[in-house]
Amino acid sequence: MLGQLYTVGSLRDTESGMAFAVKNRLFDATLVGIESLRVDGDDVPLGHVHLAVGDELLPATTVSPVRPLAFALKDVVGIHVEGRKVGTGTHTIDIAWRSDPFGPLSFSVTDSVVERGPRADGIPRADDNYSTDVIAARQRYITEKTGVELHHVNQYSFDPALTHGNVENFTGVAQVPIGLAGPLRVNGEHAQGEFLIPLATAEGTLVASYNRGMKVLNESGGVTVTVVDDCMQRAPVFIFDSARESRDFKHWVDEHFAEIAATAESTTSVGKLLYIDTVLAAKFAFLRFNFSTGDAAGQNMVGRATFAACSWILEQVDSVRRFFLEANFATDKKASQVNIMRTRGKRVVAEALIPRHVLSRVMRVHPESLFYHAGVANVGSFLAGVNNNGLHSANGITALFIATGQDVANVAESSAGVIYTDLTPDGDLYLSFTIPSLIVATHGGGTALATQRECLEILGCTGRGSVNKLAEIIGGVVLAGEISLASAISSLDWVSSHEQYGRNR
Amino acid sequence: MLGQLYTVGSLRDTESGMAFAVKNRLFDATLVGIESLRVDGDDVPLGHVHLAVGDELLPATTVSPVRPLAFALKDVVGIHVEGRKVGTGTHTIDIAWRSDPFGPLSFSVTDSVVERGPRADGIPRADDNYSTDVIAARQRYITEKTGVELHHVNQYSFDPALTHGNVENFTGVAQVPIGLAGPLRVNGEHAQGEFLIPLATAEGTLVASYNRGMKVLNESGGVTVTVVDDCMQRAPVFIFDSARESRDFKHWVDEHFAEIAATAESTTSVGKLLYIDTVLAAKFAFLRFNFSTGDAAGQNMVGRATFAACSWILEQVDSVRRFFLEANFATDKKASQVNIMRTRGKRVVAEALIPRHVLSRVMRVHPESLFYHAGVANVGSFLAGVNNNGLHSANGITALFIATGQDVANVAESSAGVIYTDLTPDGDLYLSFTIPSLIVATHGGGTALATQRECLEILGCTGRGSVNKLAEIIGGVVLAGEISLASAISSLDWVSSHEQYGRNR
Amino acid sequence: MLGQLYTVGSLRDTESGMAFAVKNRLFDATLVGIESLRVDGDDVPLGHVHLAVGDELLPATTVSPVRPLAFALKDVVGIHVEGRKVGTGTHTIDIAWRSDPFGPLSFSVTDSVVERGPRADGIPRADDNYSTDVIAARQRYITEKTGVELHHVNQYSFDPALTHGNVENFTGVAQVPIGLAGPLRVNGEHAQGEFLIPLATAEGTLVASYNRGMKVLNESGGVTVTVVDDCMQRAPVFIFDSARESRDFKHWVDEHFAEIAATAESTTSVGKLLYIDTVLAAKFAFLRFNFSTGDAAGQNMVGRATFAACSWILEQVDSVRRFFLEANFATDKKASQVNIMRTRGKRVVAEALIPRHVLSRVMRVHPESLFYHAGVANVGSFLAGVNNNGLHSANGITALFIATGQDVANVAESSAGVIYTDLTPDGDLYLSFTIPSLIVATHGGGTALATQRECLEILGCTGRGSVNKLAEIIGGVVLAGEISLASAISSLDWVSSHEQYGRNR
Amino acid sequence: MLGQLYTVGSLRDTESGMAFAVKNRLFDATLVGIESLRVDGDDVPLGHVHLAVGDELLPATTVSPVRPLAFALKDVVGIHVEGRKVGTGTHTIDIAWRSDPFGPLSFSVTDSVVERGPRADGIPRADDNYSTDVIAARQRYITEKTGVELHHVNQYSFDPALTHGNVENFTGVAQVPIGLAGPLRVNGEHAQGEFLIPLATAEGTLVASYNRGMKVLNESGGVTVTVVDDCMQRAPVFIFDSARESRDFKHWVDEHFAEIAATAESTTSVGKLLYIDTVLAAKFAFLRFNFSTGDAAGQNMVGRATFAACSWILEQVDSVRRFFLEANFATDKKASQVNIMRTRGKRVVAEALIPRHVLSRVMRVHPESLFYHAGVANVGSFLAGVNNNGLHSANGITALFIATGQDVANVAESSAGVIYTDLTPDGDLYLSFTIPSLIVATHGGGTALATQRECLEILGCTGRGSVNKLAEIIGGVVLAGEISLASAISSLDWVSSHEQYGRNR
Repeated sequence: MLGQLYTVGSLRDTESGMAFAVKNRLFDATLVGIESLRVDGDDVPLGHVHLAVGDELLPATTVSPVRPLAFALKDVVGIHVEGRKVGTGTHTIDIAWRSDPFGPLSFSVTDSVVERGPRADGIPRADDNYSTDVIAARQRYITEKTGVELHHVNQYSFDPALTHGNVENFTGVAQVPIGLAGPLRVNGEHAQGEFLIPLATAEGTLVASYNRGMKVLNESGGVTVTVVDDCMQRAPVFIFDSARESRDFKHWVDEHFAEIAATAESTTSVGKLLYIDTVLAAKFAFLRFNFSTGDAAGQNMVGRATFAACSWILEQVDSVRRFFLEANFATDKKASQVNIMRTRGKRVVAEALIPRHVLSRVMRVHPESLFYHAGVANVGSFLAGVNNNGLHSANGITALFIATGQDVANVAESSAGVIYTDLTPDGDLYLSFTIPSLIVATHGGGTALATQRECLEILGCTGRGSVNKLAEIIGGVVLAGEISLASAISSLDWVSSHEQYGRNR
Repeated sequence: MLGQLYTVGSLRDTESGMAFAVKNRLFDATLVGIESLRVDGDDVPLGHVHLAVGDELLPATTVSPVRPLAFALKDVVGIHVEGRKVGTGTHTIDIAWRSDPFGPLSFSVTDSVVERGPRADGIPRADDNYSTDVIAARQRYITEKTGVELHHVNQYSFDPALTHGNVENFTGVAQVPIGLAGPLRVNGEHAQGEFLIPLATAEGTLVASYNRGMKVLNESGGVTVTVVDDCMQRAPVFIFDSARESRDFKHWVDEHFAEIAATAESTTSVGKLLYIDTVLAAKFAFLRFNFSTGDAAGQNMVGRATFAACSWILEQVDSVRRFFLEANFATDKKASQVNIMRTRGKRVVAEALIPRHVLSRVMRVHPESLFYHAGVANVGSFLAGVNNNGLHSANGITALFIATGQDVANVAESSAGVIYTDLTPDGDLYLSFTIPSLIVATHGGGTALATQRECLEILGCTGRGSVNKLAEIIGGVVLAGEISLASAISSLDWVSSHEQYGRNR
Repeated sequence: MLGQLYTVGSLRDTESGMAFAVKNRLFDATLVGIESLRVDGDDVPLGHVHLAVGDELLPATTVSPVRPLAFALKDVVGIHVEGRKVGTGTHTIDIAWRSDPFGPLSFSVTDSVVERGPRADGIPRADDNYSTDVIAARQRYITEKTGVELHHVNQYSFDPALTHGNVENFTGVAQVPIGLAGPLRVNGEHAQGEFLIPLATAEGTLVASYNRGMKVLNESGGVTVTVVDDCMQRAPVFIFDSARESRDFKHWVDEHFAEIAATAESTTSVGKLLYIDTVLAAKFAFLRFNFSTGDAAGQNMVGRATFAACSWILEQVDSVRRFFLEANFATDKKASQVNIMRTRGKRVVAEALIPRHVLSRVMRVHPESLFYHAGVANVGSFLAGVNNNGLHSANGITALFIATGQDVANVAESSAGVIYTDLTPDGDLYLSFTIPSLIVATHGGGTALATQRECLEILGCTGRGSVNKLAEIIGGVVLAGEISLASAISSLDWVSSHEQYGRNR
Repeated sequence: MLGQLYTVGSLRDTESGMAFAVKNRLFDATLVGIESLRVDGDDVPLGHVHLAVGDELLPATTVSPVRPLAFALKDVVGIHVEGRKVGTGTHTIDIAWRSDPFGPLSFSVTDSVVERGPRADGIPRADDNYSTDVIAARQRYITEKTGVELHHVNQYSFDPALTHGNVENFTGVAQVPIGLAGPLRVNGEHAQGEFLIPLATAEGTLVASYNRGMKVLNESGGVTVTVVDDCMQRAPVFIFDSARESRDFKHWVDEHFAEIAATAESTTSVGKLLYIDTVLAAKFAFLRFNFSTGDAAGQNMVGRATFAACSWILEQVDSVRRFFLEANFATDKKASQVNIMRTRGKRVVAEALIPRHVLSRVMRVHPESLFYHAGVANVGSFLAGVNNNGLHSANGITALFIATGQDVANVAESSAGVIYTDLTPDGDLYLSFTIPSLIVATHGGGTALATQRECLEILGCTGRGSVNKLAEIIGGVVLAGEISLASAISSLDWVSSHEQYGRNR
């Protein structure tokens, strides 16, 4: 998620002048020179300015390439100005400095000196916001505000500090039941062998249904799964005076890809910029940056890298009039045709050749029924305008996402799917399921949380280079669910038609 | 999820003949007569047939309207046949009986008498599959198979029997961190006042970001939320010889709506059949049944009711050639245009009028920036073919779904959204977000689980008639998230443009 | 297409005062009373006002229910005011009157008295704008402006006055070649027998390709076509203070359907209001009015009828804040999911059962190849997000639209289609094509033009009740095109695979 | 449109043996060796085989690189075999030869020797199928079959031989009225100045409405139009044993792009292969070949070039199991997201800045109304799932397509559009319209027909390099239509609200 890049706050008058704080919300940088400071349009002599870093006050004039000031992401630098007061009201502050590696940056911000009203948010907080005390205070606060005594939400087995970076105002946990399915035999390039599948769900029959499908797959020799594509996106938009400049810009971007990539990749040791899809409309150029992101899902990684690239671009290209880091062409946490067509996260194909005797025996249905149903359901899918012509891949994906600490909101795009079935000349069933935009990680996000890490361990998906293994397992589980539900639906047809024929007896 | 309606299993030879079991997977019914039984095509004299119910054996000939046999959903009846053996191999069994309220039903099933191979699934199970012992056995099984010792997954605060109906092979829990946000002031028709919001997530900054948005909404007088539509679907397909019969069938359905509704509603004390959308293509008639479902999400309820209605229809209409209870026109757990257009679950609109000074002060951005960005993002959305022209409603929805025991896979359809913004003449921001297919429940599914129930209590969303209150709160939370992220994105524009202008100094 | 409902023009000072003209752009009405007239905010005594109808001047005060003034669509009434001048500049005029059947109407318009600048448009015009002279003048004008001498555009075989109502500034014709295909055997409910098919096209091989397909269909016993649905839409939007009012409005509309329908139908002797689809989002209620429209395509008919209904609604419902007669939910001349799902114009299904020997002999391809290709193409369609999973229905539809005087821009929505194929147990091919939104007419629009009328006569599609016959023929032609191109594509596969296998010899 | 590549026909027994004909439906090639011929599985000695070219019979054994046999597209070579008869029934013929530049090719075809039934198609034909006689015969045939005397269809001003390559079975013309609009001032890169616009249509008010819009644009200084992208596609699918091979194939294609391009471009002097979009699903690799095509629309050009490339690929890659030249990922003559996102034909943006006084004076509506309506219509578009959030671009495009000899069926994809409006701080209206997939040509297709050529001349769009000029003019015309209809709709709002307010007086 994005944040303002630099924000100014805590504007106030001090005894000897005024002060405020600047927070770095961009990414790691080093200040190598303060160039100017203006308050409400007036230049302030830099000799009157000090920077507060930790406990010490540093004269602004001393910041230089030889005496740089580290200013990492989330760092706050206080700025003190002697001899000028601001008073109540809204004030504008313009700052220009030089940073490494981003060069000269200047920005203009406003802040207000106000009488603080009552806090809009009464939730207890503390400096160490993950301490036992403050968590207990929040739990009591709930009881006070709502009358609800917590007996379960407040029970968890791990050190809450572990959730730092995963949740703010930690107050307890949701305990989601895990049912065990499998083993499932997976013939992947990364996942090879039998896997026990922990499914976190509250939907009755889900585990049983997937388990039946796994039995079919196992008896068919296992499920073959392949990760066929892999990329994560951020899609800024550049706005011009007219379409003509946006078209020229597209060409410029193509010509400067190497430099753009180098700048983007300077912000990450893992991410690689693969290519940029540029789409033009009106006077806008949407650039969909595609990165590889290692074992991380990578949304934050590519956000930072894309912003760095865009900052560099903005330095080079005069014709840009406005810029947003995102404008719904990525498309994060949403189902979209661009994700289906151009991939987001992993593109995974699971396949199996299911002998007709296996299907008949385990699921009590013939391949022809499933195949016929798939054809009819394709028409239904077309009429409905749906992002998945299969049946319920979201069920298995969600249960595994919760169990393994994925960002579960990515079910939105991960729910897309393409089912394809075929009958062999021998009457066996070829069944495949393509997940075009599966967002998974084995590093970062919630993957290090306590139960989540254990579930990843059960799957053998921890450590460097394990993310494709996880993607393959998920693909296999999804196919199990499809074969199971497809069989159930098709056997309804079979029962029903008998009921129908039976009524005339 | 669907299942076969009646399944036959446990076929075996006995000392005096043969036996098998029939399981009712349809819905509650009462047998009022056994009409015939054929084994491998041969009629079996009914005098040789007994039904095993509990411990007693009931002669098949005694079943009658005056001596009915209850055969509820999931019941199993054993059938014993004297004087006939079957031997190893696959056998066909045809049964015809009469049931109330579904009349004469006959079906043909096959089962095999086989040498059992090794179990495909080695997961420990027991008759009481939620006992401490069997759960521990499964946990040990994980350790044996994978080497992973469980320290966290196996820690939960509730009686595992509570998960009966929610999960099979219960083995532990996923502990998902809950961060507390709010209070949020909601001006709904059902939710009125301030609400503390428990968000279950592992995505850092999510709680903080939503919290900022809630602050904006609170300072704007709260968020107005309205449930504008409410229906849950199942969409069977009827297949005919040609399009002409399908067209005539559509008219027949329209003319017989009252009887169809009565039959559907006979299976549920809560669900009401509101209307049927019939869509024709090829020789198919897709009927999208729309029900109200009270406080339940209702997928199972409407599945049963729709099947009952379809059974009745199949009795009446000779021209149907095939039938499936589902063919991707519902569309369950998938993002689709039909859900966006015609609603699935609750259709919820959240609105707020945000004074420009509130937005400027809290989010450091002006209404014009958000408004402009929304216009650009609409173009991005159109190019991407996305199911949501807003920003990240899936984030808040998912966090609340996990916390409150919803079927989280429904994030697939619940992720759809329509954002609409406007500037008032005074420069304030009207912001609305429409969730066209929000699937929520306060009854059934995972809503009675331990932590989930507590979170519903925190929201005051328990008891009869509380589901719209929950829907309104979720709508309000979603709007908070939109205003927060939209502001962050727009302020990037603002910073960046200043950086750009600044570089020429 | 829409126009302003009443427009004021020709504002000018006269010798004795001022005058202007009001044009009725709404629909037929009768004035039964003039209630007030204000000029620039000042009430004008009605005794000073006269209405100029034809050559006579009628005192405004005499208009009454007993002395009504017919004011039909497109009528212009001049209004003369004694004793008041306006002078150069922009002026506001407010009028209130009573009309039958629309009751009291008042509106405010502005017009300017200006020095006319040079004409932006130098195209010669005349009072009789279809006269030989003015047409010749326009042709000369082309030559003068562009140097192009017309030798062909200016050659046509009909009286140009015939194009009144079809085109403004008539200057000549496009001569589009017509190729003859067929006969095609159609087994419709309206079209029965063999039909010669005039195809207006410039795309080489199109006629030959369709002809081949017709041969296949003929040898298969003909094509069965059915019109399964029929409705034409206009979709106004009503805008409220908030979603809550829009939801209540939806219920109000449902409750007042009978009155709404009566009002809508008062404007047309043919159109019938079938039902209204109301969709809510933000604070908007989109009402998609569905009409039957007889032999006309009906866009104008339903526009007028919907506006009449909306006028009545606006009289009844106080809470409406804004209103537009159209806001992209109809959706006219655009491809859309709502058209595919809910029909626009005729919904037509063409079907054929093609014996394998016919397909093999005529097209040199086996049913299995087409069937297999259709399955693969379904995946391609899904990935592409296309409005038609078939091949090229737009080709045949366009050629017939041009030939028969349809509004060819409706190819946009008429291009949608659903192909469905199946193999019978005997290896024959069931092939169907559904056109969900075929916009056709045999009355109105260009259907009375000279060559267009002849083509309709060739098809036997003139006179009352002929539109479904035309729809059926078009459906049959489309299926011929699909079978032809599908065969060609599939035989490529067959050739290619042989080439491939052959290369190793 | 596609055709079989090589077809065999006219199989028959002759006095001394048998004969048949092979037609080249692929593209120009030269035979440099006949390698084998088998009839019904038996090798035929090549010494018994002769090739009939024109009047001479050439021994098969003499064909060699030094005595090559030209075998151009559409050429037919007769093959005579001595000493073998086939008799009635179906026979299989396998041929292997070498060609330049495609190397060894072998294929297997079947043909039947049958008793010819009655002709399915009784339409008169002749060797010179464009002669006056045969055309007259067809016209008489129409009269005989249908009773319709042609008075208009049979009147045209050009030599029918001109339609060779445009239409088969030429029988007359559709005379479509042309109305004149403009002049329109276009500020393009190719089209600069004022243009008279011939619009071929039968839809009343269309010309007048577009004319009004042109007046607005002219008074705003003209319309700025830019062609921002340009490519034409063919999208074959390659089918493998599993997804894994398809993924490896994608990499292979990327690595061999230069050779693929060279092969593709060997078939055309104009087309250039720009890039290939490869999308994977199931075991399929869809390759969307993107070409530049000069002044032609290029569908046939890219079909041939793509096939040549695919033939080469098939020679190289053993793992391909099946192949189709098209599988709905191109997507020709259909509206699709891939066309909107990735362009098909020209991507054209038309823009104008319309001063508020111009809009108010000419259209009697304020910019705010149009802007507000556009926002509401965006919501309608989203709900409808439409391919165009504008109003009616298909109207102007279709009228120009008919007038200028475009393939009018391409209205299907050309109907897509993106409207974007903005208000400037001064209250003026920025309006842009993006046509993402405009298929146009000034060379090939119907552009050389008589009236069509004249209309292109009127627009100054003939000769080399004129296609972008035409695209720009069409873009400008479309924007004129949008501003005109948008104003009309918005003024309805204005009238209506006044009517509404007025009712309380």
